[in-house]
Amino acid sequence: MRILLHRADGKTEPWIKDFARYLPEAEVVVWEKGVPAPPCDYAVVFVPPEEMLPDLQNVKGIFLTGSGADGILRFGDAIPLHIPVVRLTDAGMGAQMAEYVVHAVLRYYRRFHEYEELARAGEWAPLLPPVREDFAVGVMGTGVLGSRVLEALKPFGFPLRAWSRTARAIDGVQCFHGADGLDTFLRGTRVAVCMLPLTEETNNILNLTNMAKMPQGSFIVNVGRGGHVSEPDLLNLMRTGHIEAATLDVFRHEPLPAQHPFWKEPRITITPHISALTLRRESVQQIAGKMRQMAQGEPVADVIDRSIGY
Amino acid sequence: MRILLHRADGKTEPWIKDFARYLPEAEVVVWEKGVPAPPCDYAVVFVPPEEMLPDLQNVKGIFLTGSGADGILRFGDAIPLHIPVVRLTDAGMGAQMAEYVVHAVLRYYRRFHEYEELARAGEWAPLLPPVREDFAVGVMGTGVLGSRVLEALKPFGFPLRAWSRTARAIDGVQCFHGADGLDTFLRGTRVAVCMLPLTEETNNILNLTNMAKMPQGSFIVNVGRGGHVSEPDLLNLMRTGHIEAATLDVFRHEPLPAQHPFWKEPRITITPHISALTLRRESVQQIAGKMRQMAQGEPVADVIDRSIGY
Ligand SMILES: NC(=O)c1ccc[n+]([C@@H]2O[C@H](COP(=O)([O-])OP(=O)(O)OC[C@H]3O[C@@H](n4cnc5c(N)ncnc54)[C@H](OP(=O)(O)O)[C@@H]3O)[C@@H](O)[C@H]2O)c1
Ligand SMILES: NC(=O)c1ccc[n+]([C@@H]2O[C@H](COP(=O)([O-])OP(=O)(O)OC[C@H]3O[C@@H](n4cnc5c(N)ncnc54)[C@H](OP(=O)(O)O)[C@@H]3O)[C@@H](O)[C@H]2O)c1
Repeated sequence: MRILLHRADGKTEPWIKDFARYLPEAEVVVWEKGVPAPPCDYAVVFVPPEEMLPDLQNVKGIFLTGSGADGILRFGDAIPLHIPVVRLTDAGMGAQMAEYVVHAVLRYYRRFHEYEELARAGEWAPLLPPVREDFAVGVMGTGVLGSRVLEALKPFGFPLRAWSRTARAIDGVQCFHGADGLDTFLRGTRVAVCMLPLTEETNNILNLTNMAKMPQGSFIVNVGRGGHVSEPDLLNLMRTGHIEAATLDVFRHEPLPAQHPFWKEPRITITPHISALTLRRESVQQIAGKMRQMAQGEPVADVIDRSIGY
Repeated sequence: MRILLHRADGKTEPWIKDFARYLPEAEVVVWEKGVPAPPCDYAVVFVPPEEMLPDLQNVKGIFLTGSGADGILRFGDAIPLHIPVVRLTDAGMGAQMAEYVVHAVLRYYRRFHEYEELARAGEWAPLLPPVREDFAVGVMGTGVLGSRVLEALKPFGFPLRAWSRTARAIDGVQCFHGADGLDTFLRGTRVAVCMLPLTEETNNILNLTNMAKMPQGSFIVNVGRGGHVSEPDLLNLMRTGHIEAATLDVFRHEPLPAQHPFWKEPRITITPHISALTLRRESVQQIAGKMRQMAQGEPVADVIDRSIGY
C-alpha cells in the first residue's frame, strides 16, 4: 500500500511517524511540487494545491485531514466523482468544539464581554443577568460536531434549538430543518452557533435577511467556515446593535487581512481558526482504520456525498 | 411571627412581597436607623450595620441572605452565641458559580485571554493548546458550591482536585484536606479556584508562600472572599510570571477602589462580585421553609458553627 501525503505547512515527518506506527504496511510518499508522484493507492490531503490534481486522478481514495470537504470540493469534477473522498469525523474535534462554544455562550450569557470593557475603563458596575428562558442557543448543523456541542450545553439549562438539512430528533432540543424551518429557528434563537459544512446551500447563510430575523441584541458564534457569514452584513447589524456581539473563528480570507475592519470592532472576538484543531495521532488512527477497510473492499463511513457537498 | 428585615441597598419592597407570598403568616418590619425595632422573632440580614446590633439581641434566629457568614461574624460575640445564624445554601447560586468557573477555566485552557490580547494588536497567531493532563483544576472548599462546580467541570475531562477542612471523597476528584494536605494539593494544581468561606484559618490563604507552591504559569480564580487573596503577593507573582493570570470576583475593599493597581494589570480579570448573586425568590422560599421549621421547634439545616466560623 502506498500513500501520497500533502501537508500545507510542510511538516510531514510527524505524520510519517504516526503512519509507520498505525499502518506499518504502508509506504508514505510526500508530494512535492514539480515532481510527478509514483502510483499511489490513497492520498492524505486537506486542501490540495492545484498542481497536485494530476496525482489524485488514479488513487482509490482521498482521505481528508479535516472535517470539512469544501476546500477540496472547490475543484469540482477535477476530483473524479468515482473516487471516494473521506472526511475526518470527530477525531478529538468534538471535545474542542464543546469547549469553544460553551465558553462563548457563557461569556455572553454572563455578560463577561461587557465586564471586560467596564474593567478596562476602571468601572465597577454589576449588571442584571439575562433571563435564561430568553437565552436560547441555536446550533446550525447537528452533525458529529453540532450534536456534541448540544450535549455539552445541556447541563447549563439554556433553551436549546437545532437546525439541519433533514429532519432530526435530539432529546431536550427543539429541532428544525430545511429552508422552511430556518425562519422559525432564527426567530427564537438568541445565540446562533454555526457548525455547518460550507456548501452551495449554506454559503452566506448568515446574511442580512437571516440575521435580521433573530431577536434584537443577539449573538453570532461562527466555527463553521468564513463563507457562512456575510462580513459586511454582520458589521451593519452590529453597528445598529441588532447583533450585540460575535465570536468568529473562521473568515473568508485566512489569515484575516491586517486591514480588515473586524480587527477594529471591539464586540467581535477573533480567534485564528483554532476552535477544533486536527489532532494528528487521533486522525492517523482513524484514517488508518478506514484505509484498511477500503483495501479489504469493506464499506467505509464518512464518504462525502458529492451531490450535496458534505 | 414578626420578621425584622435589613437590605443594604434599601430595596425592601420586593422582599416584603415575596415574604407575603411564601410566608403569609409573617409580618415584615423594615429596620430603620435610629428607630428602635419592635420585638421580632427572626431577622433577615446579610451584613447588618453596627447600629442594628441592639435589635438582634432578642431574636430567635438570624437568617442570612447570602452563603457566607463572615460579614456578620466580624461582630463576634456581639451576635449572641445562642442565637442560631442560618446561611443560605445554594438557592440558585450553585448554577451561577458553575457558569462562572467553567467559563474562567475554559478561557485559560484554550488561551482565549491570549487570543484577546493578540486580536487587540491585530495579530493572527494560532497557539499550541496546553496538555489536558497538565491542566489540573483544584477547587478550594468542597461545600455546597465547590462540589457543584466540580460536577460542572467533570464533562471537560481536566484532572480535578479538591481541598477541604475535613476528609471528603468525591467521585472522580483527587481529594486533600487540612493544613497538611494543602501543600500536595497546591503543587499539583494549575488552576486554583477559591470557594472557601472566610474564617481565621482561611484568611490570606492565597499568599506568596502558598501560591509559590503551584506550578510555574498557574492561574487563580477567586470567587470566595477578597480576604482569601493577598493582593500584593498576587501582583508580585504575576509580575514574575509564576501566576500567569487571575480572575477575581471579590476584593478586600468593594467596590474595588479606582486607584487600585489591579485595574491596570491586563492579566487580571475583574468582575464586580457577581459570580453568584442572591436570587430573591429562591432565597425567600428557602428562608421561609427554615423559619417554619424553627418556629415548630424542628432542627434547621445550615446553622453556622460559631466555633469554626462557617
Ligand atoms: N473551525 C474549525 O476549526 C472547524 C473544525 C472542524 C469542522 N469545522 C466545520 O464544522 C462543519 C461540521 O462538521 P461535522 O463533522 O459536524 O459535519 P457533519 O457531521 O457532516 O454535519 C453537518 C450538519 O450540517 C447540516 N447541514 C448540511 N447542509 C445543510 C443545509 N443546507 N441546511 C441545513 N443543515 C445543513 C447537516 O444536516 P443533516 O443532519 O440533515 O445531514 C448536518 O447536521 C465542517 O463541515 C466544517 O465546516 C470547523
Ligand atoms: N462571590 C460570590 O458572589 C459568592 C457567592 C456565594 C458564596 N460565596 C463564597 O463561597 C463560600 C462557600 O459557600 P458554600 O455554600 O459552598 O459553603 P459550605 O457549604 O459551608 O462549604 C465550605 C467549604 O469550605 C471548606 N473549608 C472551610 N474552612 C476550611 C479550612 N480551614 N481549610 C480547608 N477547607 C475549609 C469546608 O470544608 P469541610 O467540607 O471539611 O467542612 C467546605 O468544604 C462562601 O462562604 C462565600 O465565601 C461567594
